[in-house]
Amino acid sequence: MQIRVAATPELFRPRSGWIAVIIDVLRFTTCVAAALQSGADAILPCATVEEALNGRQPGELLSGERQSRLIPGFDLGNSPHEFLPAKVAGRRIRCTTTNGTLALRAADSGLCAALVNRAAVARRLAGMGAPTCLVCAGNQGAFGGDDWLAAGALVAGLRQAGVELEPDDASRAAESWFLEYQMDLPSALARSDHGRHLVSGGFLADLELCGRLDLWEVVPDYRDGAIRNHPGGGV
Amino acid sequence: MQIRVAATPELFRPRSGWIAVIIDVLRFTTCVAAALQSGADAILPCATVEEALNGRQPGELLSGERQSRLIPGFDLGNSPHEFLPAKVAGRRIRCTTTNGTLALRAADSGLCAALVNRAAVARRLAGMGAPTCLVCAGNQGAFGGDDWLAAGALVAGLRQAGVELEPDDASRAAESWFLEYQMDLPSALARSDHGRHLVSGGFLADLELCGRLDLWEVVPDYRDGAIRNHPGGGV
Repeated sequence: MQIRVAATPELFRPRSGWIAVIIDVLRFTTCVAAALQSGADAILPCATVEEALNGRQPGELLSGERQSRLIPGFDLGNSPHEFLPAKVAGRRIRCTTTNGTLALRAADSGLCAALVNRAAVARRLAGMGAPTCLVCAGNQGAFGGDDWLAAGALVAGLRQAGVELEPDDASRAAESWFLEYQMDLPSALARSDHGRHLVSGGFLADLELCGRLDLWEVVPDYRDGAIRNHPGGGV
Repeated sequence: MQIRVAATPELFRPRSGWIAVIIDVLRFTTCVAAALQSGADAILPCATVEEALNGRQPGELLSGERQSRLIPGFDLGNSPHEFLPAKVAGRRIRCTTTNGTLALRAADSGLCAALVNRAAVARRLAGMGAPTCLVCAGNQGAFGGDDWLAAGALVAGLRQAGVELEPDDASRAAESWFLEYQMDLPSALARSDHGRHLVSGGFLADLELCGRLDLWEVVPDYRDGAIRNHPGGGV
């Protein structure tokens, strides 16, 4: 199976027949996994705050962040700890974040992966058997070590799932980065450029959760503008 | 000293006061080092074959490649073995390559680094003490493990030169990649996406030379459209 990693959305080139997997481990795709794990019906990615506000339908929640902070008038921020069943079960959530939503929009459809649902996504990809490109959201247009880590975790997870890989250079480098730090993922996240920013903003507990490997079985599936748990994904 | 790595020219954001270091280890910046080591007066990067042909002045040589091959009518290809003193000493060389020239054009001025002149460039950067961005040429717009390796080598070389670094995520990841493969750099190059292409094209001997660390003392300095050996660089 061919596997590629785009270090940022800018480096992603959509290709017919390929599956895209969006990774924004701090914190968008971790939040997506948390929301679906808590029984949310769907996450609707929006590029801007205005788009989220204007598109809101009755009963929908708004979530997102700007500069890591809750947006005024929004129900939820961008901390995976907020997406509790009591708040989100059965709900549709309109969501906008700095890097993650834009990364998602670079692909027409695909899966969303984080460290927390790494093995579940790897198993789903193994079952599909199609060439796959992992798209790292990155850090405001730049390379992000946090997403590189999760991309590497997914490559390693595919190998663990018994998939014979044809990795590109980026996949091999990301996997090597993950193998170096796999014993303490929360600390690795905390040392990353984006992680240090979050730690200084008081979000250390988020990094602990974002760094937990293979915690949940959800497989977030993005198509037609909405992310839902894939029928094959557990909760 | 702040140090950043742009995995491709697309991810490079020029910043006032920062030094850019262009890396295209397979094979443009290795050829630049070879040419200056052999006493060439200057390398003049050209974006296209036409620009090289049309701009040629009496006495100038033309060098470059398309799809790794010599361009018809050119004097030299893109193999560092070709840039011998008998051919290039005292000459100006108009040069066009697929990735390297375009990477160079992304910066107004800067240094050119490869594995062969890694320590010399690191010492020059240490002496300058300015924040530095290493710009990897990459592989036709994609991440290239060969340039990532050389960028990591330069980060490690700066540390060896006693520089206290403030690395970004990309610098840390590239350095980690280099430290993993430093014991056999030619093999690491041969396993890279671009390296495998060159091996299959019969250029294995080039990889042996491109993978030799700290072989030469030249410090290629790019400004006003020409690359010359920096006055501080040895031969």
